[in-house]
Amino acid sequence: MSRSVKLAVIPGDGIGPEVIAEAVKVLDAVTTGSGLSFEKTHFSLGADRYLATGDVLTDDDLAAIAGHDAILLGAVGGKPGDPRLAGANIERGLLLKLRFSLDHYVNLRPTTLFPGIASPLAAPGEVDFVVVREGTEGPYVGNGGAIRQGTPHEIANEVSVNTAFGVERVVRYAFEQAEQRRRKLTLVHKTNVLTFAGGLWKRIVDQVAAEHPDVAVDYLHVDAATIFLVTDPARFDVIVTDNLFGDILTDLAAAISGGIGLAASGNINPAGAFPSMFEPVHGSAPDIAGQQKADPTAAILSTALLLRHLGERELAGLVEQAVTADLAARTGASRSTSEIGDAIAARVAQ
Amino acid sequence: MSRSVKLAVIPGDGIGPEVIAEAVKVLDAVTTGSGLSFEKTHFSLGADRYLATGDVLTDDDLAAIAGHDAILLGAVGGKPGDPRLAGANIERGLLLKLRFSLDHYVNLRPTTLFPGIASPLAAPGEVDFVVVREGTEGPYVGNGGAIRQGTPHEIANEVSVNTAFGVERVVRYAFEQAEQRRRKLTLVHKTNVLTFAGGLWKRIVDQVAAEHPDVAVDYLHVDAATIFLVTDPARFDVIVTDNLFGDILTDLAAAISGGIGLAASGNINPAGAFPSMFEPVHGSAPDIAGQQKADPTAAILSTALLLRHLGERELAGLVEQAVTADLAARTGASRSTSEIGDAIAARVAQ
Ligand SMILES: CC(C)[C@H](C(=O)O)[C@@H](O)C(=O)O
Ligand SMILES: CC(C)[C@H](C(=O)O)[C@@H](O)C(=O)O
Repeated sequence: MSRSVKLAVIPGDGIGPEVIAEAVKVLDAVTTGSGLSFEKTHFSLGADRYLATGDVLTDDDLAAIAGHDAILLGAVGGKPGDPRLAGANIERGLLLKLRFSLDHYVNLRPTTLFPGIASPLAAPGEVDFVVVREGTEGPYVGNGGAIRQGTPHEIANEVSVNTAFGVERVVRYAFEQAEQRRRKLTLVHKTNVLTFAGGLWKRIVDQVAAEHPDVAVDYLHVDAATIFLVTDPARFDVIVTDNLFGDILTDLAAAISGGIGLAASGNINPAGAFPSMFEPVHGSAPDIAGQQKADPTAAILSTALLLRHLGERELAGLVEQAVTADLAARTGASRSTSEIGDAIAARVAQ
Repeated sequence: MSRSVKLAVIPGDGIGPEVIAEAVKVLDAVTTGSGLSFEKTHFSLGADRYLATGDVLTDDDLAAIAGHDAILLGAVGGKPGDPRLAGANIERGLLLKLRFSLDHYVNLRPTTLFPGIASPLAAPGEVDFVVVREGTEGPYVGNGGAIRQGTPHEIANEVSVNTAFGVERVVRYAFEQAEQRRRKLTLVHKTNVLTFAGGLWKRIVDQVAAEHPDVAVDYLHVDAATIFLVTDPARFDVIVTDNLFGDILTDLAAAISGGIGLAASGNINPAGAFPSMFEPVHGSAPDIAGQQKADPTAAILSTALLLRHLGERELAGLVEQAVTADLAARTGASRSTSEIGDAIAARVAQ
């Protein structure tokens, strides 16, 4: 049986192209002879494209990307403070526009402390949880505004929008994940302050929990959750949370498990109405771009999430095993981006 | 010279009364013979009061408290999930109402890793920074609402309100702190997503920075800030941030520096139009209430912040030295709440 998958590849800015080159290398290595192949379309999007054309993401770009089965993205964003980019917000106009337009309501971010990887924690214990971050609502909707901007009388508002529809679907997904894992789900919010949004999240988790009596459900305020992430990460299995809290918690989660050089993510539309998008959690890191210094592991692990999403569990497992073996074999000697990619590609090809 | 200060004491719920008893003990010990005395008024507020009377904080309570020179607060909040408290939100109705009504626009939260205290971090390095958290704006304003509540069509919104007036005053305070410290200030926000609120914060920090050329100014997205708090806390001196980000970062800051049992805070109205309020960062911890298990150190360190706010630097220093000595002498043997208070009170009396 052979299967061809149309993959949109968006390397993006900074270290994005370097890490994506290695991710594609591994993807090619693992699929060779498997019957699965990727038909790749390359999209040049990000700061350079904006500087060249003034466009961030056109309707045509979006339609072309949406015509694919899946998306692999590197990182987007120019040099902070670059005056030529002052008028553009590449993150909102490109990354968030893709997540929102393609209805990526699940932002899936697994956190594992791999054997041999140093954590900044003295006694990390077992770190193996997944954050299910809502991806299309909350404070990320872009529903803000300001009056008297730039004057001493400025007022700037940001509205967090939360719907029963949007919360329920991501909560259901999180419970399904918990059913396949250690059956523990923690809702993280700030119900004592954000009483309306928090009340909605709490009620829906309670409702869906009733359908999953075998899943132990817990609640933590977001501030308390950061404490447990550094004092007792082993307590977490599945965390479900809103878009902004998920953004914050997953960077912290990455930090305790070896850094954002290892953190993979999927922006998923589970129903498949739109292509899902896989990307490392890290940014474009313009300061080290083009120097072959970036660790491509997060991008490579993102291809494992992509393969799993496509139902290719075996191939996903091969990539994860190759990464695990590569991490365990690290000696501390520095390797270039492509050397790491070569090493992992060689392991999956074995 | 003798000076009498009217102090409103709000022990609150759970472990609040236990830790406040020790804080008052230390305050009495350090002021004995100093010429400074506290005229204390005790306010019974919190979950028990609500259960007894249905009131959380009446206008009369507020007026009476506002008539004092300063406030010492323990912790508020009943047992989570207590059905009798379902109709009340003690945190919003009491703690946040005090902060907002008394215009506590600076929420000052110092973080120090004291000698002898274990951090969950393997190599914490020097931890000595202060978070200046805005206290009267942002997502905490209570400007939210919901329609079709409890139905599948519910929409719940929360509005973050940010003003040039409110941001500028807290940013100025943060720069003043930086001038008296290591002259480094880090703004934490999420300017790439919350573009209106973030833009306002960024512009005001840039403006005020121009008046402080000797202060090195840095910016971090809130997600990245959590990474540095666990990988390189020594990089921070003064962090200035909004109400919600400050809430999250200060729990994490407490976690890396020995836990919320040691974290003190001041809710400050610098101009003195209203009494400032000092409280441990921790909550009411109903699960261990009444068992003499709570560490009163955070409450005791909050009295040092109170003394410093009153201009009593020498007395504040005595409390801090006594706490530092007590922490350094800890053997791991467990002591009751009052034993710790006794030990620190004995040291300040020496
Ligand atoms: C770049 C930014 C808009 C993005 C986010 O906030 O979601 C990033 O931090 C992430 O976590 O993917
Ligand atoms: C109890 C709660 C309302 C409060 C807050 O969110 O400010 C607490 O977490 C704090 O940090 O003082």
